[in-house]
Amino acid sequence: MNSDDSHLIEVMTQREELFRGRFLHAFRDQVRLPDGSSSDREYLVHPGAVMVIPLLFDADGSPRLVLERQFRYPVGEVMIEFPAGKLDPGEDRLACARRELAEETGFVAREWARAGVIHPVISYSTEFIEIWFARGLVAGPQRLDAGEFLDVFTATPQQLTAWCRDGAVTDAKTVAGLLWVQEVLSGAWPLEWQEPGA
Amino acid sequence: MNSDDSHLIEVMTQREELFRGRFLHAFRDQVRLPDGSSSDREYLVHPGAVMVIPLLFDADGSPRLVLERQFRYPVGEVMIEFPAGKLDPGEDRLACARRELAEETGFVAREWARAGVIHPVISYSTEFIEIWFARGLVAGPQRLDAGEFLDVFTATPQQLTAWCRDGAVTDAKTVAGLLWVQEVLSGAWPLEWQEPGA
Repeated sequence: MNSDDSHLIEVMTQREELFRGRFLHAFRDQVRLPDGSSSDREYLVHPGAVMVIPLLFDADGSPRLVLERQFRYPVGEVMIEFPAGKLDPGEDRLACARRELAEETGFVAREWARAGVIHPVISYSTEFIEIWFARGLVAGPQRLDAGEFLDVFTATPQQLTAWCRDGAVTDAKTVAGLLWVQEVLSGAWPLEWQEPGA
Repeated sequence: MNSDDSHLIEVMTQREELFRGRFLHAFRDQVRLPDGSSSDREYLVHPGAVMVIPLLFDADGSPRLVLERQFRYPVGEVMIEFPAGKLDPGEDRLACARRELAEETGFVAREWARAGVIHPVISYSTEFIEIWFARGLVAGPQRLDAGEFLDVFTATPQQLTAWCRDGAVTDAKTVAGLLWVQEVLSGAWPLEWQEPGA
């Protein structure tokens, strides 16, 4: 952070737990604003998550993306999205990416590359989503959590692009993921691939 | 929604308000899962928001983007983002876009075009963000809300692209906005511009 950001920075002076549910964990902090006045900030604490962009290649070398269709209760719709999931306590991010990809889609990937991080909701959640690319995919059995229902399918980057344009895809992490797909496949944003082993 | 999505859809059977703060409003619903079993879903109800992608043009016609730097308490960092804000109760979305642009940046835009909608956090919030482009900008006085502190600046699309790649920009709505910027400026995703008047 720049040292000249003191006219923007807010400092916590008191913290109150608002609510701890089975999933939601909410706080209200008293903060000192840059002008010395006080306010409060309500937000959720989230463990963080990973999203996986799994690449398949057709016989002619053209890429395909592995995607999911899943009913998302808060928005009341079946959403198209890249595989993703929350970090377990203490879990390594790549380990989480490999676990979520295998559980949700059945695919095991030989090569992995860390792309970057996004923050989905900077106004009221601590959540980050680390984005990983996966390739060298081998199909296996899906192992969904109890109460988890989703379809796995593949699409071309061109199809995903059309769906983001026409509103068939509105999940922000997946739209952000498409930017990464376009830039990586064009060669503009090269990745550093690694083979983490079994 | 497809009629053959019954293997994915969850149905509310009971609703409980968990918490109502000054800003956060949380619920826990009991749901019937596709296999007939029961589970619960905790989520926030959010009024929805708009994001504005304001376009300026240099003397040679090359585009510049109006951006903000703002401290975001939940993530503890000064974030680079497009102007955005929550809908007031009953507020028209374009009216909200015009209000937020004027309040946060001082700019008034002659022309507006609706781009699309994203859902930032489909697993635990009802929030949607409607994306609007604005051009024909005229500078005026910023009118920040009490307790709101932010810097306004401009950048080229190339600069924003580099920041999304290198992690200087991680706000998901802004990363998704860059996809729109690239596709609109390339001509791939044409917009329908309107002049809403004063």
